[in-house]
Amino acid sequence: MFSVTILGNNSAVPAYERLPTSQLVNMDGQKFLVDCGEGTQLQLMRYKVKYSRISHIFISHLHGDHYFGLIGLINSFGLLNRQQDLYVFGPPPLKNIIELQLQVASTRLPFALHLKEIAKPGVLMESDDIEVSCFATDHRITCYGYSFCEKRVTRKREEAGGQPRRYAFCADTRYSEKLAEQVKRYDLIYHEATYLDDQREKAELRYHSTARQAALLAKKAEVKRLLLGHFSSQYEHLDQFEQEARAEFPNTDLAKQGVSYML
Amino acid sequence: MFSVTILGNNSAVPAYERLPTSQLVNMDGQKFLVDCGEGTQLQLMRYKVKYSRISHIFISHLHGDHYFGLIGLINSFGLLNRQQDLYVFGPPPLKNIIELQLQVASTRLPFALHLKEIAKPGVLMESDDIEVSCFATDHRITCYGYSFCEKRVTRKREEAGGQPRRYAFCADTRYSEKLAEQVKRYDLIYHEATYLDDQREKAELRYHSTARQAALLAKKAEVKRLLLGHFSSQYEHLDQFEQEARAEFPNTDLAKQGVSYML
Repeated sequence: MFSVTILGNNSAVPAYERLPTSQLVNMDGQKFLVDCGEGTQLQLMRYKVKYSRISHIFISHLHGDHYFGLIGLINSFGLLNRQQDLYVFGPPPLKNIIELQLQVASTRLPFALHLKEIAKPGVLMESDDIEVSCFATDHRITCYGYSFCEKRVTRKREEAGGQPRRYAFCADTRYSEKLAEQVKRYDLIYHEATYLDDQREKAELRYHSTARQAALLAKKAEVKRLLLGHFSSQYEHLDQFEQEARAEFPNTDLAKQGVSYML
Repeated sequence: MFSVTILGNNSAVPAYERLPTSQLVNMDGQKFLVDCGEGTQLQLMRYKVKYSRISHIFISHLHGDHYFGLIGLINSFGLLNRQQDLYVFGPPPLKNIIELQLQVASTRLPFALHLKEIAKPGVLMESDDIEVSCFATDHRITCYGYSFCEKRVTRKREEAGGQPRRYAFCADTRYSEKLAEQVKRYDLIYHEATYLDDQREKAELRYHSTARQAALLAKKAEVKRLLLGHFSSQYEHLDQFEQEARAEFPNTDLAKQGVSYML
């Protein structure tokens, strides 16, 4: 089992029941949380995700819609008497922000919290089966995408001629050819599509992408499948995002909250 | 119109659709937000509160379930292009926490944000009609309750023999006779009732109150009406809170999310 469950698919201000960015990556039972916008713990409860099993949290960047829910989740882990170590990765000064808030409440967590600030792209976590690494994206502030790669195929899939699978969360970014190289021939990528293409200039100015640009990136990278997310609150209906992207890259889906996408 | 709208009535970890503490006090159209747990902006949207009109936010203390939603709300005010000044009061180092998070995202707010750290109890805001002040409660860390007082009655109510009305949000606290003096003969108080009285010792240990203690406080203070909130996540059903409190103080209600209580 290798899946991505969408917890929040909106950008910036929540709207139309869409919450800010967060998603859960499940690789054979090992659970990773990617970004943690405000309300992520509520979404985990709503969708009945067994979130105590999250071992690592990866934060792409320090715009609020990607991490304001982190301190609340960590705090709740403490109140729920979590014992297992928790690893949190993100750009500086994430460690300061979290530690300051724990400190002022005199919070004593019952588990070991490892806050790891990312200094440069590279491998962050590796086991016999899995490798998680980060790569830079083209955004207004330091921002990392994350890739989740199988190192070998399970025996069952090997017999069926399967290859190790790869998923990338491409974070917030402008259209970037460098990024296309980074995720070349991945099985699945999640790429932001904050706007439709008629607002390409606005997207460029704000270091974001349009649905069409996300699709062009997927095409250039020759990935198998594309998930679109991080929709602007200015759009109530999202059908046009799907249409616009599919015109360039047919195997596109809108990332829907509460839905698990299988690799 | 003088009302209190409950946005969150739970303590600590959200549970059973109950969110952490937050409420909106409306005094003739002037809107004050009291506490701002994670998800407060979602609740404001859900209950269709015109939250752009909130002029002041009062934070009782820096336990996460009382303020983790503040940075998200401030950020959203910015993204929604708020112009009106915003005043935020709370204990130190609230200012540092908020400023650090705004700074790392290079956030430029389009409105003036006045972060006021409270050094001691006293009057915080005063107009011709309204006075808002804070008072210390008995909690594990520095914690303030807030009282909202009319300074005069509107002509219509004066003709009917009305008196200026007073509401107090008593924050997190142990049972405290000093607090009873503070809210003497108020029209309405909101008092925490984290536990039922069979867990009185646990309440004491954690600087919280039971439903019975909240009712005894209301009786001692001779207030007109009591609202109970800040329920522990260990309770799914709350009927016993109402029963236990009403045995001591009949004019008690459970603070329900999305409900406005009129003074």
